[in-house]
Amino acid sequence: MIPSAARQRLVDTVGPKGFLDKPEDLRLYEYDGGVDKARPELVLFPKSAQEVSSIVQIAAANKIPLLGRGAGTGLSGGAVATSGGLVVSFARMKRILEVDYDNERAVVEPGVVNLDITAAVQGDGYFFAPDPSSQRACTIGGNVAENAGGPHTLAYGVTVNHVLGLELVMPDGRIIQTGAGGFDSPGYDLPGLFTGSEGTLGLVTKVTVRLMRKPEAVKTLLAIYDTEDDCGLTVSEITARGITPAALEMLDGTLMRMVEEATHAGYPLDAAGVLLIELEGLTEAVEEQAEKIKAACRACRARDVREAKTAAERDLLWKGRKNAFGAVGRVSPFYYVHDGVVPRTQIAPTLREIGSISKRRGLTISNIFHAGDGNLHPLILFDARKPGDMQAAQNAGFDILEHCIKVGGSITGEHGIGVEKLALMDKQFRQEALEMMRKIKHMCDASGLMNPGKLLPARKGCAEITQPPVHKPEDLI
Amino acid sequence: MIPSAARQRLVDTVGPKGFLDKPEDLRLYEYDGGVDKARPELVLFPKSAQEVSSIVQIAAANKIPLLGRGAGTGLSGGAVATSGGLVVSFARMKRILEVDYDNERAVVEPGVVNLDITAAVQGDGYFFAPDPSSQRACTIGGNVAENAGGPHTLAYGVTVNHVLGLELVMPDGRIIQTGAGGFDSPGYDLPGLFTGSEGTLGLVTKVTVRLMRKPEAVKTLLAIYDTEDDCGLTVSEITARGITPAALEMLDGTLMRMVEEATHAGYPLDAAGVLLIELEGLTEAVEEQAEKIKAACRACRARDVREAKTAAERDLLWKGRKNAFGAVGRVSPFYYVHDGVVPRTQIAPTLREIGSISKRRGLTISNIFHAGDGNLHPLILFDARKPGDMQAAQNAGFDILEHCIKVGGSITGEHGIGVEKLALMDKQFRQEALEMMRKIKHMCDASGLMNPGKLLPARKGCAEITQPPVHKPEDLI
Repeated sequence: MIPSAARQRLVDTVGPKGFLDKPEDLRLYEYDGGVDKARPELVLFPKSAQEVSSIVQIAAANKIPLLGRGAGTGLSGGAVATSGGLVVSFARMKRILEVDYDNERAVVEPGVVNLDITAAVQGDGYFFAPDPSSQRACTIGGNVAENAGGPHTLAYGVTVNHVLGLELVMPDGRIIQTGAGGFDSPGYDLPGLFTGSEGTLGLVTKVTVRLMRKPEAVKTLLAIYDTEDDCGLTVSEITARGITPAALEMLDGTLMRMVEEATHAGYPLDAAGVLLIELEGLTEAVEEQAEKIKAACRACRARDVREAKTAAERDLLWKGRKNAFGAVGRVSPFYYVHDGVVPRTQIAPTLREIGSISKRRGLTISNIFHAGDGNLHPLILFDARKPGDMQAAQNAGFDILEHCIKVGGSITGEHGIGVEKLALMDKQFRQEALEMMRKIKHMCDASGLMNPGKLLPARKGCAEITQPPVHKPEDLI
Repeated sequence: MIPSAARQRLVDTVGPKGFLDKPEDLRLYEYDGGVDKARPELVLFPKSAQEVSSIVQIAAANKIPLLGRGAGTGLSGGAVATSGGLVVSFARMKRILEVDYDNERAVVEPGVVNLDITAAVQGDGYFFAPDPSSQRACTIGGNVAENAGGPHTLAYGVTVNHVLGLELVMPDGRIIQTGAGGFDSPGYDLPGLFTGSEGTLGLVTKVTVRLMRKPEAVKTLLAIYDTEDDCGLTVSEITARGITPAALEMLDGTLMRMVEEATHAGYPLDAAGVLLIELEGLTEAVEEQAEKIKAACRACRARDVREAKTAAERDLLWKGRKNAFGAVGRVSPFYYVHDGVVPRTQIAPTLREIGSISKRRGLTISNIFHAGDGNLHPLILFDARKPGDMQAAQNAGFDILEHCIKVGGSITGEHGIGVEKLALMDKQFRQEALEMMRKIKHMCDASGLMNPGKLLPARKGCAEITQPPVHKPEDLI
């Protein structure tokens, strides 16, 4: 419980319209996009770094846990107040403060919606590259916290490759400016350390992002397959032919049918899988690459390779991809999206492995991949009203991620660890690396109030960080 | 002094041919590529991470300072044993352990020469992107320590963008595996934190690097100018026209003449400056970009734009650029290369400012830029035998870097802080950010034995890290 004097000071900091504390309001802040749930005691809406600093100082003095929240679209439980306490929402810090085309950068507040950065600069020929599927809703602060990716990660990298500097409020309330506006941050790379730290080290209050020039030409292809294996093989084949598309997405047959029924994007209903391939660059280069890609697809037995003829056709294909999760929601009352990475050469074997996990766990698992960089998003369908079904879904997710580790991949490509994958960190890393991460956490946040219980598993035999039992499948712990 | 029992244990660790301790041998390890000088007591040549771990543990138990060394080509004093003690040379750890084309990565030991990675894979159409001028000599371990860049940083980023994982020996001797082979390292980004940490946090014993596909076509242009201003303006103009060349280098008239006399690369002797511009990609795209670039150069009053017609002509132009420092050595007995970054729009004004610093300090200053990313390398010519000349050169360097900070840039693009720029860290960053860096140093290396006195300035009024007086120009401290 927040002591009443502290509560009053917090409310005074943000003003009478700057907080929510009624149960019916707090209920809206119990979730993010994942499966975890916990209610905060108070949600605050600061308008400046100074207000964030005051909040953090009051929290520190009163040992109140707190966490930052953007749009709540995260998928690993990062924005869920599993320890209660405060949620610091950045909904009122959503200004684009500076746009500097000459030096191709912009300074924005953390609450700016990802796509709004591009919207602000696209008239002048620029865009912000990281493009998570949630980009119409998710915020840059959340993107930084989770080191978000997206379909175009293949060409442009993840969020950390587009962050040139961060202003942070540290757990003691100090405000720090990091980065020097360029690629190489002098001294230790503080922007790099904080990007992807999932709000466990401090709160981001300002972000300097890279802006990129829009390419001259874009071409979108849809390759259609009768077997999943051939779909997966094409990904390696495209790489082997020396082409890096801007995006290379794969949808399996099950997912594709759900998407097609929801969006009428023109995906075939009878195929085993499709690749959605986007090329960007100068017109001639894009034409040439498209021919090479078509040849690679055909060499891997693609049944058909279609090309979007107009911007509208292209948008429709992407609408299908970007609304995939919504499409699944129409079919299954509950689903669980996972996030793992495998080496590209392991895509086809991994699809087979997921098939057998699906059988073993008795659940439909459908797959959508950022195939070019081996980042897979299995969607596990379940019914939470059926006893044991949710547990089975979580177990299936863990099975898949353990397979990712086994074949030389990783347990997250872009969703983060959150609370969802805590139990797998021990399998991804040896204890020495985890100890180093714990030291970083302790160094920044000795009292452990900053988004507690996220990213780092408790030491073996140590109860300081506990997870809800649902996250400890009986066959893993 | 190293206690004799410890000395014996160290020597036993590396074997009878694994160390140097004679004064005439140690003298060769007094320098790196910068102006600092200090003699270590013992140079060790371990052959494995286990040997490095043993060395580090013996050093820790006996409070002996130590530092890692690659080829000693660094320019900020990072590999100079300013506190005496041990130098751990990676000259015997130079194996390429694994090449994985399917997943476009390789695992190498830190002593591998930068260009040897490319040499090993170019027959199969791949290359390693970071290309510092010293790439024929410098090692990947040194590249990681300094987060090295190069002419092609503009297109490909700095070393950290090409490191997927690191094996490290920490100051207590523990061996840590970091990274998970992909773009996003789960949990805190340890490879990102250690890349660019200048050997002050631990010693790198294995590096997983990205391999990239060689482009289909390469074209190299040389644009020639009658004024430095027009040369600088062209850089902004190229960006404004939406083109990102693979490399965009600038040499001023003074430097160009020195280079031409040494290499006969075909640079004009009477111009005020040249831009060396490289384009990479598909043939048609490169042709189209070349036309656009030529137009941009002419719009900024380029006197001539030449195109390398053959691979030999191209190599000759690059030979001029890459041997620039050697060319300067022919003309001036001593010179001091600096490394700062300015926003692209500040290139022309910065050249004018350097001109007036040159006049004020009474020294010839010549400029070579990675112009595309605003990374400048002023070469300050001096005569160390002339009293006060070296001090004047260092002061001039500090003047230039202070200007970089003032116009929104930074004090290093790729050379690191080392001992050279310690006094400027206070000007680059506020105390809060420096305190965070000190906490990182303390967290990893509480006893401060790992490359002491580098990267981080001592706290005001604190004598724990002292610099040689020559690095404290009287008008700065």
